[in-house]
Amino acid sequence: MPVDLKQFSNPAYKPGSKVKRAFWFLFNAFFLRNPYNPFGGIKRGVLRMFGAKIGKGVVIKPAVNIKYPWFLTIGDNSWIGENVWIDNLGKVEIGPNVCISQGALILCGNHDYKKRTFDLIVGDIVLEDGVWIGAQSIVTGNVRCESHAILIAGSVASNDLNSYSIYRGNPAELIRERKMEDSAEKE
Amino acid sequence: MPVDLKQFSNPAYKPGSKVKRAFWFLFNAFFLRNPYNPFGGIKRGVLRMFGAKIGKGVVIKPAVNIKYPWFLTIGDNSWIGENVWIDNLGKVEIGPNVCISQGALILCGNHDYKKRTFDLIVGDIVLEDGVWIGAQSIVTGNVRCESHAILIAGSVASNDLNSYSIYRGNPAELIRERKMEDSAEKE
Amino acid sequence: MPVDLKQFSNPAYKPGSKVKRAFWFLFNAFFLRNPYNPFGGIKRGVLRMFGAKIGKGVVIKPAVNIKYPWFLTIGDNSWIGENVWIDNLGKVEIGPNVCISQGALILCGNHDYKKRTFDLIVGDIVLEDGVWIGAQSIVTGNVRCESHAILIAGSVASNDLNSYSIYRGNPAELIRERKMEDSAEKE
Repeated sequence: MPVDLKQFSNPAYKPGSKVKRAFWFLFNAFFLRNPYNPFGGIKRGVLRMFGAKIGKGVVIKPAVNIKYPWFLTIGDNSWIGENVWIDNLGKVEIGPNVCISQGALILCGNHDYKKRTFDLIVGDIVLEDGVWIGAQSIVTGNVRCESHAILIAGSVASNDLNSYSIYRGNPAELIRERKMEDSAEKE
Repeated sequence: MPVDLKQFSNPAYKPGSKVKRAFWFLFNAFFLRNPYNPFGGIKRGVLRMFGAKIGKGVVIKPAVNIKYPWFLTIGDNSWIGENVWIDNLGKVEIGPNVCISQGALILCGNHDYKKRTFDLIVGDIVLEDGVWIGAQSIVTGNVRCESHAILIAGSVASNDLNSYSIYRGNPAELIRERKMEDSAEKE
Repeated sequence: MPVDLKQFSNPAYKPGSKVKRAFWFLFNAFFLRNPYNPFGGIKRGVLRMFGAKIGKGVVIKPAVNIKYPWFLTIGDNSWIGENVWIDNLGKVEIGPNVCISQGALILCGNHDYKKRTFDLIVGDIVLEDGVWIGAQSIVTGNVRCESHAILIAGSVASNDLNSYSIYRGNPAELIRERKMEDSAEKE
């Protein structure tokens, strides 16, 4: 049974009103994706205006692309690197002290490739406190990166990452523990 | 014998007149790559104006980059995702019901690294009906992705992909069959 | 001991005056990253104006992103491909006849993930003569790619690459020698 994308439709998926999405499309292009805008305060402001929950001290670099701010939570002191793409068709919950490095992709959308209608599958993503998502890496839907997990640059996480653990490759595999220097006080 | 890029030249490669390429460079930047333009109809129109064969119901998302539309064919109901880059120095033939997900690169160009002149090698690419090219993945020149093949996000296909088969990694390796739910009717 | 990005600071890192960096930020956005600007001469001019050492016959394609030109050296006849990102928090030294293909990332920055302060680690990068960095690949800090090494598209080099050798994967592994056609005259 071949795929027929003409039959694709998503009546069950409700990402918000068309008007809100159209306005955000423009605001995102003008304030976030725009490589001329280095002003994090403006970015945090427009994200909050559209419903994002943004903590204190959050850093947002230029040319960041965010799909739906109303599905986004970012904890205190987290960093969103240059050219990061948060393609949050679903909810993305970023804890405090998280670093998403340049060019990384947080990708909630997927498709049911077994169906000829290629149904959209949306999975939420959680990046717990202290997580580091490396440059140009990808986190896919339904993945939870536990506290202080690391995904190395250029890797693809399609399964949960354990806390204080380092992953690499496609699919990302555990390569070693993340030992902090004062590990006795590790949470 | 070291490489000498000063000696690089491609007299045999004829991608079209300079004037046409210069105009397309501007149209591509303004209508296709432009992250403010969500209007698929305009994009399909300018692509056709420059010689692309675009089927019915083709979806083209924002910030798509296409090298030479006169070397491009897209079948009915196919989707070109956001930030997709079709770097078609050669012919790229996309069948019907193909999904190229966000950030993927269709890369026809290569170089003969054994020659000090680093000669350009251009390979055509074919994505047959129902193929799904995952987010941020790469398909290189001379690759044919047969009907309903899948390349998983972040992977690199440098060899042909078999029909109804799923590939992952760099280089992409077969991981399993793509079984459709009503497989009895599979073509 | 959990990470606390509020404590992050880099008193020892001196990338140049704020004014210079602010001006370069704008010049980079306007002349280099700008997808409408195909004029290599203008790009080479503004890079030199900000302290880059750029050899003769250097090709710089559209939408290139360079962090700090005063930390950049490019030898004669080298090519910087479209969408290449030279994120040179440290010194990047590119020899003559080097090809950096489209979308590649030259990434000097790293973090000490063992410290709760997540200290910045900056590593210089050297690409010797005749090196080819493939499309969408990544070279990380403190890496030296020796003469005529090749990093295949979509790969991640986190260790040195040997001369006349070809690497692939994440992390990039040696797959074979780069034999030039007239290998008897190989340097």
